[in-house]
Amino acid sequence: MKRYQKHDFPVDQVRRYLEPGPIVLVSSMWKGKTNIMTLGWQTVMEFSPSLVGCVIASSNHSFEMIRRSRQCVINVPTIDLAHQVVKIGNCSGKDVDKFAKFNLTPEAAQKVKPPMIAECPASFECQLADGRLINRYNFFIFEVIKAHVARSPKYLKTMHYHGKGVFTVAGKTINLHRLFSKWRDV
Amino acid sequence: MKRYQKHDFPVDQVRRYLEPGPIVLVSSMWKGKTNIMTLGWQTVMEFSPSLVGCVIASSNHSFEMIRRSRQCVINVPTIDLAHQVVKIGNCSGKDVDKFAKFNLTPEAAQKVKPPMIAECPASFECQLADGRLINRYNFFIFEVIKAHVARSPKYLKTMHYHGKGVFTVAGKTINLHRLFSKWRDV
Repeated sequence: MKRYQKHDFPVDQVRRYLEPGPIVLVSSMWKGKTNIMTLGWQTVMEFSPSLVGCVIASSNHSFEMIRRSRQCVINVPTIDLAHQVVKIGNCSGKDVDKFAKFNLTPEAAQKVKPPMIAECPASFECQLADGRLINRYNFFIFEVIKAHVARSPKYLKTMHYHGKGVFTVAGKTINLHRLFSKWRDV
Repeated sequence: MKRYQKHDFPVDQVRRYLEPGPIVLVSSMWKGKTNIMTLGWQTVMEFSPSLVGCVIASSNHSFEMIRRSRQCVINVPTIDLAHQVVKIGNCSGKDVDKFAKFNLTPEAAQKVKPPMIAECPASFECQLADGRLINRYNFFIFEVIKAHVARSPKYLKTMHYHGKGVFTVAGKTINLHRLFSKWRDV
């Protein structure tokens, strides 16, 4: 499985990877144990500070780990990791060491304790910024405090989930910048 | 421009259209005037009640219209509407009647006042469910109270935004249901 060499990326530009709505792998660490969950309910919320909102259902083993540690890493996998993405979402960190079971390589993050996943081309170190909606909606608002991205490929073949086992894969890229007004933040 | 005949769709299954993270067109109505905005910062938050969270920046003309009326329709456009999607996001409802200017057809919704967009194959009628995070994050939590979807195509060629004028288009669809555990909600 390919491991990516990642480089620093501006945290206020992580929308480039997250706004398209890919399935992500969220890594966590609590009391010396790591875990990974598959997550599709996420949205960018702000450029600066760089905020991302994630719904992490309380039935997930990761829920308490992240709620207590207040940290995670959001990793963006590509279609090459499709089997791992599905299988990670179909077992529990209560029973399984997911890095070991799925042959994924934990890579030390810089500002948070949970490891990045070396086989993902983009990893975003997150600190909990607002936990007020956790109890009611399982909704975590994270600040991305450090971002790491591989230089290539420029656009990733990400996976996008429809439910019932069906994904679409990111297809062709089109540039419509000519249609944008100059005054408009894009 | 193709107009779709849409049919009732279960509100607890709208994730099929929204979880992949497409750019959406949000229609609104306030004091007899309609508007449309282009939006990429949205996430599914719950199956039932069917909740969707959207960041609507307060600089948008739609912000006050939706905050006051507490209603909108989330319409999912396909790549056929790419030029409208971009141009709608690059002008303001303060100056422009967007339905008229962009040749889009308002279609009466059933439970809310804002019109659906006939040229979009999926439209979700939304009522504000929780406005507590509007002031701090421009974050609206909507309940989808009625859903309308065209029977075909089964999977849409949606647009996914990276910023700087670049979109990817939904590509091939893959079914990995065989890898899911039977006990797992998918």
